[in-house]
Amino acid sequence: MKLEALLEKATQLERTTVAVAAAEDAEVIEAVSLAVEKNLGRFLLFGNEVKTKQLLQEHAPILMDNEAIKIVHANSSAEAAELAVKAVRNNEANALMKGHVPTAVILKAVLNKEWGLRTGNVLSHVAVFEVPGYDRFTIVTDAAMNIAPDLEQKAQIANNAVNIARAIGIDTPKVAPIAAVEVVNPAMQATLDAAALTQMNKRGQIPNCIIDGPLALDNAVSVEAAEHKGIKSDVAGHADILLVPNIETGNALYKSLIYFAKAKVGAVIAGAKAPIVLTSRADSAESKLYSLALAICSASK
Amino acid sequence: MKLEALLEKATQLERTTVAVAAAEDAEVIEAVSLAVEKNLGRFLLFGNEVKTKQLLQEHAPILMDNEAIKIVHANSSAEAAELAVKAVRNNEANALMKGHVPTAVILKAVLNKEWGLRTGNVLSHVAVFEVPGYDRFTIVTDAAMNIAPDLEQKAQIANNAVNIARAIGIDTPKVAPIAAVEVVNPAMQATLDAAALTQMNKRGQIPNCIIDGPLALDNAVSVEAAEHKGIKSDVAGHADILLVPNIETGNALYKSLIYFAKAKVGAVIAGAKAPIVLTSRADSAESKLYSLALAICSASK
Repeated sequence: MKLEALLEKATQLERTTVAVAAAEDAEVIEAVSLAVEKNLGRFLLFGNEVKTKQLLQEHAPILMDNEAIKIVHANSSAEAAELAVKAVRNNEANALMKGHVPTAVILKAVLNKEWGLRTGNVLSHVAVFEVPGYDRFTIVTDAAMNIAPDLEQKAQIANNAVNIARAIGIDTPKVAPIAAVEVVNPAMQATLDAAALTQMNKRGQIPNCIIDGPLALDNAVSVEAAEHKGIKSDVAGHADILLVPNIETGNALYKSLIYFAKAKVGAVIAGAKAPIVLTSRADSAESKLYSLALAICSASK
Repeated sequence: MKLEALLEKATQLERTTVAVAAAEDAEVIEAVSLAVEKNLGRFLLFGNEVKTKQLLQEHAPILMDNEAIKIVHANSSAEAAELAVKAVRNNEANALMKGHVPTAVILKAVLNKEWGLRTGNVLSHVAVFEVPGYDRFTIVTDAAMNIAPDLEQKAQIANNAVNIARAIGIDTPKVAPIAAVEVVNPAMQATLDAAALTQMNKRGQIPNCIIDGPLALDNAVSVEAAEHKGIKSDVAGHADILLVPNIETGNALYKSLIYFAKAKVGAVIAGAKAPIVLTSRADSAESKLYSLALAICSASK
């Protein structure tokens, strides 16, 4: 499965609107322009109106009067974050994108108790990878939000990822709770949580997926490695979702896929009222576009 | 740097002797045969004499009377482990290799207080990767032995890896203590330990290397990613050793490199009186050979 297919899928959906918090940034404007050119959706750009128009004029003059882009002035990046979040809350937009505003500021707005986007669920990072040589998506969660999730949080992180997987066409995703080994070991909390998640899935507590763990990464993604270990499992060798036990594992795996395996990625924050795109400066333009497409596909579910 | 170069290096060293615990196994005999053909060293094969001879006859008849191979009978795999460990202890051999014996059995022998190979240091797993597209070795530690090392254990793990790096020609290895972020965050123990390790290195407590952390994996291995974050560091972008904070991170990174990045690897257990090769059935013949070469290079240091 290719991430390019998500772009296609996003264009075929009913028009989604993305609220961008603090759009006055060249890289953000470039990503938005590219998305509009590809016909991915509409964009509400919250931020400094003059600066945003200037940047649009510089980077994508052809889009200055495009009906898919609407600029709404905000006096500060915090106000831009608040207005963007409120636009999602009021159903004027169905996805949120971080612009030139610190992550902490936009998350504070998202988590605002009066007008934010809380659902009662944990917010978690879901990354969808296209790995060279693999014919399916590899979804990694959580590489960026939750530091050391407990069992209940892991269940919600799994659930968030399952929702994203289903939004991109994986109806019953196979979830591998990752540990360093495939056996339950009381000295390794990751293996205990993995076993518990497996049973929670069997009892219907984490629906719409098949969970089986603990699995080490090789057992999760390689049929050969799983057979070598004699593991009988519906998930082993075929995992769609790699549920990592802590942020260090997720982050190292994420970056290993990008820097060592030359994988492509799109990612969103899931668990709020709407998907959130939190791209960073280090992300490629391509990756930002994939993240937007992923958010749009997830928003329209 | 290519792992193939380690084979070359091993043949140029003074003859090393490897004690193999429970050699009566086709895969072990194949690995040993290949190593002898490549002239890597001598092998003392402890185990069932009749079975070992049979296997040698089947798999490498040409080596039946080779002076580089000596078979020593043992009545059980536990006895084979004991005899192999004692051979290293008595300087008849300078590296140890696990054959057809459970890891727990050989480690128990290694850790025996009377005749084992303890040095007072932590034993740790050191994996040397050749990653496609990277011109230097990437050393990952610890992916397999220490579950959740504390600061003192991490210092010893770093030290063990530095010794291995120096043995293969990296005189002053650059060590990146890996975390999910590059800033010190009191909520993330990995970042606190990374900062402490950095200062321990500056104070001479972990010598013969340059340590600088915390670094996320991308900052550690990519100059571009480090510059993007504005990180000033002698290690960022050039790390030789990736010191991971827990076994899940190391294991997932190790397997990601093998299964997603198609890297090659050789690995040893360091920290005992001599390097230990603990290959598993799932390892390729090539990987076993690289591990033997790595052990031989480290033993002769």
